[in-house]
Amino acid sequence: MTRGGVMAIKIDGGKFLIAGGASLVGSHLVKAMIAGNAAKILVYDPVLFDKTDSLGALKEDPRVHLVPGDVTKLHQFIEQMDGIDGAVNLAAYMSLGFSQNPWDAIDVNIKGHLNFLESARLNNLKKVVFASSSAVYGFGIGGGIAEDMPHKTNGIPAPAAAYGSSKIIGEQLCRMYQQKYGLDYLALRFSTVYGEGQHHRAANALYIIETYERLTRGQAPQLFGDGTESKDFVYAGDVARALVMALESEATDAAMNISGGRSIMTKDLVQMITDIVGSPIQPEYIEDDGRVRLKTGKGLHYINSKAHSLLGWKPEMPLEDGLRRLLGSLQ
Amino acid sequence: MTRGGVMAIKIDGGKFLIAGGASLVGSHLVKAMIAGNAAKILVYDPVLFDKTDSLGALKEDPRVHLVPGDVTKLHQFIEQMDGIDGAVNLAAYMSLGFSQNPWDAIDVNIKGHLNFLESARLNNLKKVVFASSSAVYGFGIGGGIAEDMPHKTNGIPAPAAAYGSSKIIGEQLCRMYQQKYGLDYLALRFSTVYGEGQHHRAANALYIIETYERLTRGQAPQLFGDGTESKDFVYAGDVARALVMALESEATDAAMNISGGRSIMTKDLVQMITDIVGSPIQPEYIEDDGRVRLKTGKGLHYINSKAHSLLGWKPEMPLEDGLRRLLGSLQ
Repeated sequence: MTRGGVMAIKIDGGKFLIAGGASLVGSHLVKAMIAGNAAKILVYDPVLFDKTDSLGALKEDPRVHLVPGDVTKLHQFIEQMDGIDGAVNLAAYMSLGFSQNPWDAIDVNIKGHLNFLESARLNNLKKVVFASSSAVYGFGIGGGIAEDMPHKTNGIPAPAAAYGSSKIIGEQLCRMYQQKYGLDYLALRFSTVYGEGQHHRAANALYIIETYERLTRGQAPQLFGDGTESKDFVYAGDVARALVMALESEATDAAMNISGGRSIMTKDLVQMITDIVGSPIQPEYIEDDGRVRLKTGKGLHYINSKAHSLLGWKPEMPLEDGLRRLLGSLQ
Repeated sequence: MTRGGVMAIKIDGGKFLIAGGASLVGSHLVKAMIAGNAAKILVYDPVLFDKTDSLGALKEDPRVHLVPGDVTKLHQFIEQMDGIDGAVNLAAYMSLGFSQNPWDAIDVNIKGHLNFLESARLNNLKKVVFASSSAVYGFGIGGGIAEDMPHKTNGIPAPAAAYGSSKIIGEQLCRMYQQKYGLDYLALRFSTVYGEGQHHRAANALYIIETYERLTRGQAPQLFGDGTESKDFVYAGDVARALVMALESEATDAAMNISGGRSIMTKDLVQMITDIVGSPIQPEYIEDDGRVRLKTGKGLHYINSKAHSLLGWKPEMPLEDGLRRLLGSLQ
């Protein structure tokens, strides 16, 4: 049943569907595909295409088609993938979403992804890319994380473990479709994505915005514990470039980290934002406030050498420059 | 929103629902509940209650109610849990099911379990027990496995990783319902269950039956590789006793291994079955045949001391005696 070898696919002149494309990553991907001269970019997303999307002026481009698409509707997915060359599935609820609405989170992250794959193979797409997550490794971990690390679920918030497992299932469904039907795929495990177009739904990157908003209101930024918890941020534009390279790559049937590859302590992140804002306000150290928050160990970073060897990708945006862009877009 | 302390629940005089109750474990649980003088035992299972179920003569007991129940139907679950004191969710597709039908496997294992929990909290059940699995640790592992081990997904068959992740999500949904609504639960992680009433759906325990059937046909039993792969079998009657103790226990919000706690190499298992059958036939060692098979490391066993400390449970059936019972039931 396999189709024997990966077919060539090019952004230039190609037709693409992006599920969840009105998001932070989606907006950067649409921009990259326009720059790459795609013939058609179908944004399949249930948001109202208005001020709540991250697309902005990209919506005006004649190559961009906006469809109020629902990943839980198989028939709609099948219909919309007609004539498409490659597709990217960015549609997902994250940990906060699993906490607030596990019903829809399961439908979107798991059943929705199965609908995505089924529609892709029925329409003979040449390549699909799945937005996985570093949450497949769990939380409360530290040090350098490569792709063969197991999933640590013990002692972490329930919605976060459920989210991570939903991404593991998503990757395994890709593998099953590759084995059964020869549908070529790559799974990209994003670390914490940030950039212009940032929304308020992501638990980790939200911290950047909260820190900024407190500073601009004249309030002290808040640091939990001793501020040595570490994160690995990756710029949305770097992620978009990885998605484009994954679509064009001949590599298939693999999962890889897409990350900054560098650890930053939350206290250093807050200092960096404070310096960018030009504020003299010092942070305050507080106890945990009971919100869903994903603790990390020391020195956490996701090793991204596999993406470099398979795709030739590596992150390019320095964190400080990317933060300037994000904060500049909030003003 | 929590209900403040675990309410007492007793099998004696109590009313219970068992989702997936027509199964191997279900039939042993029904038997244990009859022995414990339950007032009502509602078997909620989509099988036809005929020769394909594992219940046999238990179906004739007036306390046993048979409902062709579908865990994917929330309304049916809610209706059937009316007046029930405690419930057990055994309904699941295993790795083979995920391979053959990922659609229904996802609906049953994840959405079905969410329906189970929602129905339980709407009907104010006192306690629920979730049948989790040692698959939450992944496969290809060896040695002694305690409850804090992470999930190894790397390098294992896709359907097995998806199955293990579906059980992790099931446990996390239990945690979320305990936190949000005070619904008390325990999650029991079964190792490979065997016993009278064994069906042909479970990949690991199936090996016992295949070995037996080859011997009785005069064929040599087959061993993969060098026969040193190890498994940890637990007798279905011991599992049923753990489920009863979990329902009656005041312990809540915990997951624990329910296992034999001892490792057996496949070559020793085959020898044990050969001895029971009284056959002189020696096994043949073969290469892998490409079926979905779950490889294990050396000395694999699941440490069950947590179940002993929380429930007072430990396995009682020696493997050889349990195998005699199972093989006797096949004649």
